[in-house]
Parts: sequence; structure tokens; C-alpha cells
Amino acid sequence: MTAQSPLGPDTAPARLFDLAQQLRVDAVRASTSAGSGHPTSSLSAADLMAVLMTRHLRYDWQAPDNPEADHLVFSKGHASPLLYAMFKAAGAVTDEELMTTYRRFGHRLQGHPTPELPWVDLATGSLGQGVACAVGIALAGRDLERRDFRVWVLCGDSETTEGSVWEALDKAGRHRLANFTVIIDVNRLGQSGPTELQWDTDAYARRVEAFGCRALVVDGHDLEAVDRALTTAADGSAPTVVIARTVKGQGVAEVADQEGWHGKSLPPDLARQAVAELGGERELRVRGPQPPHAGPTLKVDAPEVELPRFELGEQVATRVAFGRTLAALGARPEVVALDAEVGNSTHAEDFAKAHPSRYFQSYIAEQQMVATAVGMAVRGFRPYATTFAAFLTRAHDFIRMAAVSQITMALCGTHTGVEIGADGPSQMGLEDLAMMRAVRGSTVLYPADATSAAALTAAMADLPGISYLRATRGAYPVLYGPEERFPIGGSKTLRHGPDDRVTLIGAGVTLHECLAAADRLAEDGIPARVLDLYCVKPVDTETLVRAARETGALVVVEDHHPEGGLGEAVLSALAAADAHPAVTHLAATGLPGSGTTEELLHAAGLSRGRIADAARALAARRH
Amino acid sequence: MTAQSPLGPDTAPARLFDLAQQLRVDAVRASTSAGSGHPTSSLSAADLMAVLMTRHLRYDWQAPDNPEADHLVFSKGHASPLLYAMFKAAGAVTDEELMTTYRRFGHRLQGHPTPELPWVDLATGSLGQGVACAVGIALAGRDLERRDFRVWVLCGDSETTEGSVWEALDKAGRHRLANFTVIIDVNRLGQSGPTELQWDTDAYARRVEAFGCRALVVDGHDLEAVDRALTTAADGSAPTVVIARTVKGQGVAEVADQEGWHGKSLPPDLARQAVAELGGERELRVRGPQPPHAGPTLKVDAPEVELPRFELGEQVATRVAFGRTLAALGARPEVVALDAEVGNSTHAEDFAKAHPSRYFQSYIAEQQMVATAVGMAVRGFRPYATTFAAFLTRAHDFIRMAAVSQITMALCGTHTGVEIGADGPSQMGLEDLAMMRAVRGSTVLYPADATSAAALTAAMADLPGISYLRATRGAYPVLYGPEERFPIGGSKTLRHGPDDRVTLIGAGVTLHECLAAADRLAEDGIPARVLDLYCVKPVDTETLVRAARETGALVVVEDHHPEGGLGEAVLSALAAADAHPAVTHLAATGLPGSGTTEELLHAAGLSRGRIADAARALAARRH
Repeated sequence: MTAQSPLGPDTAPARLFDLAQQLRVDAVRASTSAGSGHPTSSLSAADLMAVLMTRHLRYDWQAPDNPEADHLVFSKGHASPLLYAMFKAAGAVTDEELMTTYRRFGHRLQGHPTPELPWVDLATGSLGQGVACAVGIALAGRDLERRDFRVWVLCGDSETTEGSVWEALDKAGRHRLANFTVIIDVNRLGQSGPTELQWDTDAYARRVEAFGCRALVVDGHDLEAVDRALTTAADGSAPTVVIARTVKGQGVAEVADQEGWHGKSLPPDLARQAVAELGGERELRVRGPQPPHAGPTLKVDAPEVELPRFELGEQVATRVAFGRTLAALGARPEVVALDAEVGNSTHAEDFAKAHPSRYFQSYIAEQQMVATAVGMAVRGFRPYATTFAAFLTRAHDFIRMAAVSQITMALCGTHTGVEIGADGPSQMGLEDLAMMRAVRGSTVLYPADATSAAALTAAMADLPGISYLRATRGAYPVLYGPEERFPIGGSKTLRHGPDDRVTLIGAGVTLHECLAAADRLAEDGIPARVLDLYCVKPVDTETLVRAARETGALVVVEDHHPEGGLGEAVLSALAAADAHPAVTHLAATGLPGSGTTEELLHAAGLSRGRIADAARALAARRH
Repeated sequence: MTAQSPLGPDTAPARLFDLAQQLRVDAVRASTSAGSGHPTSSLSAADLMAVLMTRHLRYDWQAPDNPEADHLVFSKGHASPLLYAMFKAAGAVTDEELMTTYRRFGHRLQGHPTPELPWVDLATGSLGQGVACAVGIALAGRDLERRDFRVWVLCGDSETTEGSVWEALDKAGRHRLANFTVIIDVNRLGQSGPTELQWDTDAYARRVEAFGCRALVVDGHDLEAVDRALTTAADGSAPTVVIARTVKGQGVAEVADQEGWHGKSLPPDLARQAVAELGGERELRVRGPQPPHAGPTLKVDAPEVELPRFELGEQVATRVAFGRTLAALGARPEVVALDAEVGNSTHAEDFAKAHPSRYFQSYIAEQQMVATAVGMAVRGFRPYATTFAAFLTRAHDFIRMAAVSQITMALCGTHTGVEIGADGPSQMGLEDLAMMRAVRGSTVLYPADATSAAALTAAMADLPGISYLRATRGAYPVLYGPEERFPIGGSKTLRHGPDDRVTLIGAGVTLHECLAAADRLAEDGIPARVLDLYCVKPVDTETLVRAARETGALVVVEDHHPEGGLGEAVLSALAAADAHPAVTHLAATGLPGSGTTEELLHAAGLSRGRIADAARALAARRH
């Protein structure tokens, strides 16, 4: 075997021992060179990955964008030394890159894999997520694209204690995703000690089967057994979980099955000894099975999308406008919708009726809903995932990681704030603006009427990154005619005059309260400007600065906790622009209960009366 | 049977039909009177609850604080009409309260139950959480208090798709919580259509058993069968899940097993007809099994806690100080620690070594870690739950609901910001301040040195509500002597002089950068004040206002995304105080990768050099 004759699908499994050892050697070398990393977690899975990459993974490392190619997701992202050693064996990175850049600043071989690497679809490293997102990739491939690629996931045993793994396997089972294989590296040791189930592979198998997937238990260091299991997994009959019993640190006696070695690179002396024990450095190359050549993608003209139109003054909930617009956007074949069993409340069900084949019911599993969206986005779809804003918090870590993965997707949270009324605080999204603003690169939208909700919902289909639309439960008057435009980063000035003494700033339900408050103030001879800050991020600094300069006093009103929402977005913009108006910030404090919208808005200090009071006090203080 | 002779443990199960019908009638009446609510979800579970409350739940409704009493958690919180009908049957609330206050403003019978009611331990309504928190109650009862009470949970079938339910059952199974019973109301219909598993009770049973609990499948409308199942569940041998096949809307032909009735009160006509069909109004009373009389609680003197002491200038990570302090706090018997399998990184393991019986390993299951903390807090313990800050986002919805429940608990997130270095962005907590500030009533702490970390960790043991400590990975010099005090809402002024031209504000790692920047500025003849804003919420407005007045210019520096963190906390405080200094806000923008702390801080614009540059620009602009 030389570097000139690569290992390939015809290489007998038993002959892959050298490759597995090479992967181990390079994982040890890379992490020792970096001075940190997870070699022992890599050593346990090296045999599994040697067999996979040589005989099963249909992948051309020179053409990672081939849409027919299999996907490989390292859900145990900390095993990056192994993944990068595979890249080297595939000829995708050089030994020099591996040895001199791993975990170093400004380089792509990061501590945990991210899509800065062309062979990586998803950032992993928050455990229990790779498995979940892979379900979305598999679902998209089979049901939306009708392609034959498979999705392979390397999963740690520790991460199976995350509920998200079971949400994922439940969906893999329900959808009978026969193109989906998870390989659990059951190496018995977690970060700080033995895992919960240790080597009880039967317990793993029972759980896997109970959740509707096929379980194959295998010795993860028996190359022929691994090969048989992967062959079975790929037989197209069932979603499969290969439960591979392995030894953490396999191949290096000093660390094998020993506690205290998680996440530690071997000291140079020990690394040299380990490399020798593993048979020294090798330069084996792998050329595994190749995916079919992808035919040219048919260029489809973007279809006309006819947005719903609303009459001025008509009472329409923004969630209704969202649902109708989403259904209309379905004319674009890349748009898919995901629901968490509340589609009749969020109105995402409008899409289900119009485009049932691109509507995915996650049931009450918000983590999996977002994970499926992420997986579908990996395949180039435009997902809209929707639930109550309060319950999107359940998927916070998935949203965070999607931003690291530089995923483009749209989220919509309905039933926001105390406005929802009688259902009470468990159902009130009062933290969602803070959560979504803090997502890197996000766009945060909060329309007050149906026209703007429709326009912004449509705009999300062309926004890069993660965009979020905050919708309201109740119906309020349509404020804008159908020709009105709502640029991202813009705002609308609904009332203004040369003598404005205060500016009232609202979004969503509070805009309507601001308008009513302006009427009251007008009666008192206090002219008030009113801004609709429908775009919370990026915020319209220019208009805010002008309002600050011209009126000197702002009242910002939001149906959200005081922290991290509309008010602080305004303050940040003003500070960055060195503008210094007086600002009163009204937000939902106190613990709300049940009641009518009016009662709850008033109790939270967000009613028209409270806004007018605040404006009067501010205007008095300024004059 | 009259109101004078209550039903009780000796009432034969078959004779409880009338009680079940009464619960149905009252659930229908209450929700129709309110004009909203979930009657059909209540009807399905009425037989289950009639048997439970009469023959199994050891509870004195007049003495809900009896520590020997069983707990009943309605994980399906939307079935509040049923719960409140039970309260009426128990004589705890009147028919008038039920009929005139349910879901009304200012009253305690809210749309979803909250602990404003003395018989409710936990706010529910975010599905999949009640089951999880109940595990914490059961664990506390058995292992910490050595009491014999049982925990009963009514769980919806829809909510079993939440991964958190399986995290919970896994822990119930692992700990062999024989005092823990979940009753799943398998009524086949979710909010918008059939559930994923519909009436496949065998599938439920397989999952339950695979996760280590005993499964009992039963006809949920067969009173004798339900009684037998609950008797078995209470036999003390195993954590048990009663899988009760039921009919949504049972007893009312018009709605029974019909789609489209979730979350809808019956219109008055239909309600009248339903009440008649159910046999009309009744006034049955229940006095179920009584818990043992609790002996007097022994008053234990608060033990002395000897906090660790650190030498000025010594290099110590705040996570290390946290761990050592937590171990010291263990002298207080109410303090418990929860880990998500990263205790050797967070240093929570120090507690494990000192107090193993009060240390609970959640493995990698952050939702269940927080849920266990919540359950233990219900029992009066002081939980400290710790993981990487990035992974606390996984538990966001649990934290949000804990605030609605008015729970007191301490959370600690370590490995925050780009400071962590080579592991890369998946491990960097860059959103945690926004998340934790937006939690109602929270306290948010961010110490820069070991002395303050120890003091603040200790202070958390006496803070009401949810408190959060943000810890840093790396070691930095101790800044404060052991006698220094760190009041909540305070700050420290580390550098100041009469001619300060700018104030540098940091916390955690950025404080050290601010100190170094101040040195550089001093060399340039720009005297700079330096504030340690160790308390992010509530923030020290007075000191900020003084700095604004005296220096006119602030540079706020945080190793966190720009939204919702330290910078916006400062801006909010200044705005509320009508103070208007020039403010430059430095925060982590861009997508970080791997690297050293220094490289990453610099790239994120947070290094001493960048801070000094910003301060120079600001000082120049102001003079």
C-alpha cells in the first residue's frame, strides 16, 4: 500500500487497520501540536470512521458541493482531531495544515468543526445537536429533493442524555428515514467520569428501537463487524443507529479506558510514545465510493408571489397576516414551513393547506423543529419555523449554534407579551426580543399591522442569516396601504409635526397604544410624534436621531421585559450616534396573570393612559 | 352520598363515577364562564384525577405546607379547569370563586396554574416541564429529606414529544425513584390534530420501559382499573408511568374524540347540554388519604461558612473561586449542587468531593439539571446549577418558567465569551447576559476576580429569585483583599482621580483589560477612571451617574454580544437617571474562531489596546 494507490471501496475491511491507526496517529499529533483538543475521544472512533470513509461514505472530497453526495455530521464535534485526520487521509488538507494550524487563530481547523470548512455542513460542539440537524438534512434529501444521498452521523455516547437526541430519533423513526444512520461511539467515558449507561449497549438498543429506529450493536474496533453494520445500515430499509462499543483512547495503552484524559492533548513525550505504539506515521490515502455526478441544476425563474392585501382599518392579527403570507410564499419551491403542533394558533397551518408536501409537523418538540429547519437550510431550502415566542426559548441553544453555522432561516414567534390575555404568563413571550437580538447577525422584526407583517414575512425569504418575526395574538387595525414598503432597518413615522414635543416609539401592540396616547396628548396640546419601529434589529438610527434632535424626548414602549428588547435597542442606537434625548422606557415589569389585553397592558404600565402620562411628565421636565 | 359525608379512601372506585362527572361538569362550567380554557383536555383526565384525589393522594387541602404531604403536578397545565374543579371538590375553593374568577384579571385561578395558589408547587403550561421538575421534588424527598411523600404528575400525551420528558424519565429510572408516578393522559388528540403516537399505548410503554421506568397501561375511564394501577404505582418498588388510554372530551358526545375542540370553551348552549349529559351539577366533597402529621422542624443554627481566601495578585480563575466557595457553602445543609457532566471544568466538582450526598449529576442534560434544581427549590433547598454558559441556553425555557414559579435558585455559567480561546465559538457563552438579564426578577453577577467571585457566590445563597453568576475560564490576578464587601447592586471603583477624563467600565475579563488600558492612557496623560461592574443586574446607577457627571465619557467593554448585556444595562441605567454622557460600547461582534485569549480579545475589539483607542477617541471628542 503506498500513497499512490489509495484505499477505496474494494479494500477489505480487515486491511483498514493501518488507516485507522493513521487517523489515530494524526489525531494525537494534531492535538499535541496545538496543546489542546480531544485525542482520546478521537481514538475510540477511528476504526468506525476508517471503514465509513473508505467503503461507505459516497463523497468526493474535491467536490464537496455535489448535491448527490452523502453527508457526514460529527455530532461529537470535539472529536475534531479525528475529523481533520480524515480530511488529511482524503487529501483535502495537508499534514502541514493539520500540524501547524489546528486550533490556531485565524485558521479554519478550529477546536470544533464549523462550516468555514467546505466539508462541514454544521457547526457542532453543543452536544445532541448534530443528530437533530441531520434529521432535517435526511428529510430534505428524501422528501423534498428525491435524492439518494445518505446522512451519516457520528454521535458521542455522553450526548445521548440530551433529550434532543430522542426528539431526533423519534422523528427519524416516524418518517422512516432509511437514508439516516447514526453511529454512537460508546466509549464509556464522558468528560468527568463514566457515562450514565457506560457499556450497556442493550439499554441503548432498547431505547433506539422504542423510538422507532433499527439498532445494530457492534464491536466498534472489529473492522469487519463495523463494515457489516454499515452495509446493513445502508440497505435502505430503516433509519439505523449503530451502537458501537469502543474504548476511549483505543490503541494507546497509557490512556485507553482511563479517566482523566477527556479533552486533554497528550504531552509531547507521551504523544511520541503513542505514535510509536500506533505504528508510526503513515501517508495512506483514501478514495472512497464516489457519488453520482450531479446533472445541471435546472434554473427555475423565481415565481411571482402574490402577497395578501389588507384594507386600511380592517382588524387583522399579525399572526394571521404571517400565515397567509407564508402560504403565498410557498409559490417559491425552496420555502418550507415547520410547526410545533400549534399551527392553528400561529396560522402556519395556512401553509400546510396550500403546500402539504413542504410542511413538516414537529409536534411539541421545538428543539427538533429548529434542528429540522437548520438541516433543510443546509440543503438550500428556506425554512420558516414557527411556534409561540415563549416556546422558542426551548430552542435557544439550537438558534445560537445555527448562527455559528451561518445558517439562513426564518423564525416566527407568536403570542407575545402580556397582550395575549387570559392564558397567563407561561404562554407570554416576554424574553424573545432579548434572545433573538443577541443572536449573531440576526434580523429582528416586529410588525404592528397586517400589511407590514405580510411585507416583512416576505422579506425574510431573501434575508441572509437568522431572521425573526415577532407576531401578536390579537387583531388590530391595518395601518398601511398595500403599496407601502418596509425596508429592513427602516421605521415608519405615523404622526409628526413641526412642534412635536415628544416622540412615542412602539412596535406591535404598543404602537397602537402609542397612537391612542398621541390622540390624548394632542387634546392636552402636546403634539407627539409616533414611530413604528417595526425593525428592531438593525434599528433605524437615523430616524431615532432626528426624533431625538427635533423633539428632545422619547418614550419607548414594549410588551417585553425591560432588558434586551426595543428600549435597549433604541438606547444603543442613540448612544452610538452620540444623541442624548431624555428617554422614558416603558416595558413589562411585575409578574402578569390572566386578564383581558386591556387589563394586562394597563397593569404592566403599557396602556395608552400610562404612555400619555409618561409623555406628559417627560415633556414637562423638558420645558 | 351528601355533601356532609365526603368521599374518601374507603370509597370504592366504582362509586367515584359521580365525582368524576362532577369534575367534568365544573371544568365545563368554569371554562364556559370564562369564555376560554381547555375543557376537553380536562374531561379526558377526570376519572384519573377522581381516583387519585380520593384514594391515593395523601394531602390535606387545609394544610398544603405539610412537608409530609404528597405532591401533585399538572404538567399538562392547560387542564387547569380540571385542577380547579378538584380544588372545589376538596373544599379548597368555592364554586363562586371557580365560576366568577377563573381566567379573570387580578385573580388566582389563572389560565394555567401558578404557585400563587397554595396547592400548586410549580407554574406549568410550557409542556414537558412539570414531569421534569417533579423528578427534582421526588429526589429531594427521598434522598435529601428521607420523607415518604410521593410525587404524582398528570402529563399530556402531546407533551411526550418534548425531549425533556425523556431526560426526566431517564433520571427517574436511573435513580429508581419509586416515589414518582407519572400518569399520561393518552387522549389521542393534540392542539391541532392527532398526536404522533395517537392511541399506540404499546409504543408509549416500550419507551417508558426502555428509559428505566415501569409502564402500566390502563383504560383511563375504567375507575377500578385506574385504581389498581395507582395502587401498584404506589407500591414503592419502581418509578412508574401509568399510560392511560382516554378520550378527549369524554362524557360529552358532541366533542368526544373530535378534532377542533382543543383550547376552546364550550359555547353556553352546548355547555348547558353537556352539563345535563354529565348528570348535572353536584356538590360532592372529597377527603382523601391524609399525610402523616409533620413533627416540628428542628431549628438548626446557620452554620459558619468559611469562604476561601485569595492573595492579592495571585492568578485565580473565577470558576475556581466559584467551585471552592460552593464547596464551603455546603456547610449549609440546604445547599445542593447540580452538574451537567462538566464539573471538572466548572469546578462544581469541589462540592461533589465535599458533599457527595447533595451533589446531583445530570449528565449532559441541561434542561433536566435546571428542572431538578427547580424541584429541589420547591422543597426548600438552595440549588446551585452549573454548566458552560453557552449550554445554559439549552434550559432557557425552564429558567423562564422558574421565574413564573417564583423559584429561588442559583445558576452559574462558566467559559464565557471569546476569552475561552481555542475551543471555538460553539463553547463560547456570548448570549448569557442577555438571556439572564431578561429573566424576571433575576440578579446577574459577573465577578472579575476570585475574591469577588467567592463573595458573590456566597451571596447567592441568600438572594431571592433566580440569580446568575457569570464565570471566566482563565486565571487573572486577584484584585481585592479578603475583607472587601460586594453588595448586590454595587460596583467597585478601582481607579479614580479628580481629573478623570473618561471612565472605563468592565466586568470579568474585560475589567483586567480596562485596567491595562488605563495604564496606557495614563502614559498619554489621559487620566481614566475604572469601574468594576460586578453586578450587572441590578446595576449601580448611582456610581454610573457620578462617573457620567465627573468624566462625561464612558467606555463600556464586555465579552458578550452587543445586545442585552453589560453595555445596554449601563445605557438603561443612565437613561432612567436622565444622565447623558458620551458612551462607547465595545462588545464581541463578528464570528470568533479558535485562538489564544489575547488574539481573540483583540480580534473582537476588546483588548487593552482597543479600549485605550476608544477612550482616546472619546476623550478627544469631548475636549
